[in-house]
Amino acid sequence: MSATLITGITELITNDQPAPADPALIVSEGIVAWIGPAADAPPADSRIDADGTVLPAFVDSHSHLVFDGDRSAEFAARMTGRRYDGGGIATTVEATRSADDDRLRELVAARVAELRAQGTGVIEIKSGYGLNTPDEVRALRIAAEFTTETTFLGAHVVPAEYAGDRAGYLDLVRGPMLERAAPHARWIDVFCEPNSPHAFDGEESRAILTAGRDAGLELRVHGNQLGPGPGVRLAVELGAASVDHCTFLDDADVDALAGSSTVATLLPGVEFSTRSPYPDARRLLDAGVTIALATDCNPGTCYSTSMPFMIAMAVREMGLTPTEALWAATRGGALALRRDDLGRIRVGDPAYLTVLDAPNHLHLAYRPGVPLARPLL
Amino acid sequence: MSATLITGITELITNDQPAPADPALIVSEGIVAWIGPAADAPPADSRIDADGTVLPAFVDSHSHLVFDGDRSAEFAARMTGRRYDGGGIATTVEATRSADDDRLRELVAARVAELRAQGTGVIEIKSGYGLNTPDEVRALRIAAEFTTETTFLGAHVVPAEYAGDRAGYLDLVRGPMLERAAPHARWIDVFCEPNSPHAFDGEESRAILTAGRDAGLELRVHGNQLGPGPGVRLAVELGAASVDHCTFLDDADVDALAGSSTVATLLPGVEFSTRSPYPDARRLLDAGVTIALATDCNPGTCYSTSMPFMIAMAVREMGLTPTEALWAATRGGALALRRDDLGRIRVGDPAYLTVLDAPNHLHLAYRPGVPLARPLL
Ligand SMILES: [Zn+2]
Ligand SMILES: [Zn+2]
Repeated sequence: MSATLITGITELITNDQPAPADPALIVSEGIVAWIGPAADAPPADSRIDADGTVLPAFVDSHSHLVFDGDRSAEFAARMTGRRYDGGGIATTVEATRSADDDRLRELVAARVAELRAQGTGVIEIKSGYGLNTPDEVRALRIAAEFTTETTFLGAHVVPAEYAGDRAGYLDLVRGPMLERAAPHARWIDVFCEPNSPHAFDGEESRAILTAGRDAGLELRVHGNQLGPGPGVRLAVELGAASVDHCTFLDDADVDALAGSSTVATLLPGVEFSTRSPYPDARRLLDAGVTIALATDCNPGTCYSTSMPFMIAMAVREMGLTPTEALWAATRGGALALRRDDLGRIRVGDPAYLTVLDAPNHLHLAYRPGVPLARPLL
Repeated sequence: MSATLITGITELITNDQPAPADPALIVSEGIVAWIGPAADAPPADSRIDADGTVLPAFVDSHSHLVFDGDRSAEFAARMTGRRYDGGGIATTVEATRSADDDRLRELVAARVAELRAQGTGVIEIKSGYGLNTPDEVRALRIAAEFTTETTFLGAHVVPAEYAGDRAGYLDLVRGPMLERAAPHARWIDVFCEPNSPHAFDGEESRAILTAGRDAGLELRVHGNQLGPGPGVRLAVELGAASVDHCTFLDDADVDALAGSSTVATLLPGVEFSTRSPYPDARRLLDAGVTIALATDCNPGTCYSTSMPFMIAMAVREMGLTPTEALWAATRGGALALRRDDLGRIRVGDPAYLTVLDAPNHLHLAYRPGVPLARPLL
């Protein structure tokens, strides 16, 4: 058993017990084995000088990493004024279906390497660019090579070949496709968005989610992104772990979230990249809602893997303090995945640790765009 | 003489002649020696596979890198609502004066390494946290170890010890301090801002700039940051290379810039980090004004060294296309420094080259927060 002592910690963020003065950690076999003052550290086999801030690795609870194709031109066109209605997903579906397994795996691996290099420990990965049974199953199989937090999102949009037969696609998603996908997924998700002709309304979403639950999957929802809608209340009613986006909320939505165990996951990169209004995170926190921050990394509405960027945007645009934003990007993400072992630094938990080249955590928002975060181990 | 062939260029941005299909470059002794189709490349001694987009290195024409002290807590407080009036500079002055030469040099070196790692080739560095003769001269000496683009900014603010004697400080800045500083600087700059009690009004700014010109320095101006003011018109009248910030402009300001050789340098990181309104870059471009993008990297109002971040913000918030923003961050910066040899890729120019881990330059704005850029050589 090999133990590594970590010293030189200018600030230790635990999201748990208060850190001692001049804190140190011992990690043994991938587990946090000891936390205490450096002067009291027990012997270890090796030692790392962190020379910066140590925090729980970011937990990115919402991503769509399994895709092929380039949509940068669509982004550039949108920056001249066009709005997003979900229609561009079709181009990614086509490119993703056409890619062979090795290419898709290589693309996901590159994206995972990129996000790990910026301090993310665990990421959730959704399917949703296959939209037929074999390609959805393939996406989940590949995602499962990188994370246990895999999400079946056959109900991302209605694919082009079912444009005239929504009912047929719904039957497929909650029937044979779900049956084949379920063994490869922990979660089921749905793009509940009556404001988009491509996505699903409240009753369609309910049918998909309840079928997923019956198949043994846990629930998450894309809700209230493009306008007011039933997504948030449906997520709360069904006990979903998280409802994501939450851009357009009325008081009843906020009240429902506040009285629930459903996390509101905010995705400021989407508002950034679609030039949409940002959700009011302050209002949610003040109401007692638990919030998370995630990237939503996807080729259409936010092709960023950077949790530090999301923290900086949440502070600038959503009314969070740097401390609140960091919590939402770590412990908030863990709760959105119902993973009590993530997003904090605590003896006995897995040692997903991130170090900042900065004296304190405020620098994540104070130094926007600067790649300060990296994995400690 | 050793020549390196660069191939595998998915897109070549020259800001000069159109790039050929499947372009290649040869760099010899730090100079671009040949540009053409890869199939026609002459023999070389070694070869680099760029595997991405190649562009002129960013030119960061506005920074304040020579400082000590941490102001992250001031930033966090401001994010709860306090506004910036320039008063916090005093804390940086105190910390900077207290630092010894080696420490200051080490701090600047770390910041320069950080910005080079994100693809900046040449940076301008200002003094302005010494505010007495020996400390201003020291800042310029240290800056000159890293760039030829050194700027004397004794007129950053009136230091605390002259709070009751503005005239005395003006006499010092344009007299003995200027005389000692001039041999170490190419440029003189002034924070022309009647809206701040710490900065300088139009007539004070004119007196400082003309004294600098008489001492052989070229001119740049901080103008119209916190509100309307005389900075832009003064810069144009005196033929300054650049007037920086340009956040609050009236039609006469825009007209003056459009008819001049003065570049309007926009600093979106400042608006980001002070939660101020962004300048309207679209209006300037449409009027025919030459614009540049720079970081203004400084501990008070924007502690970012990231030119890719500035590009992403300019696209999201200032109405620039990704292509316009990239030009402003490269060739625009070169023109703001009157350096015709920078910000483009052309045979005979120095080979400051940046490569993006991306198929095209749109990704700089499309993938915010992701560190795609690095030096090619
Ligand atoms: Zn999503
Ligand atoms: Zn400045």
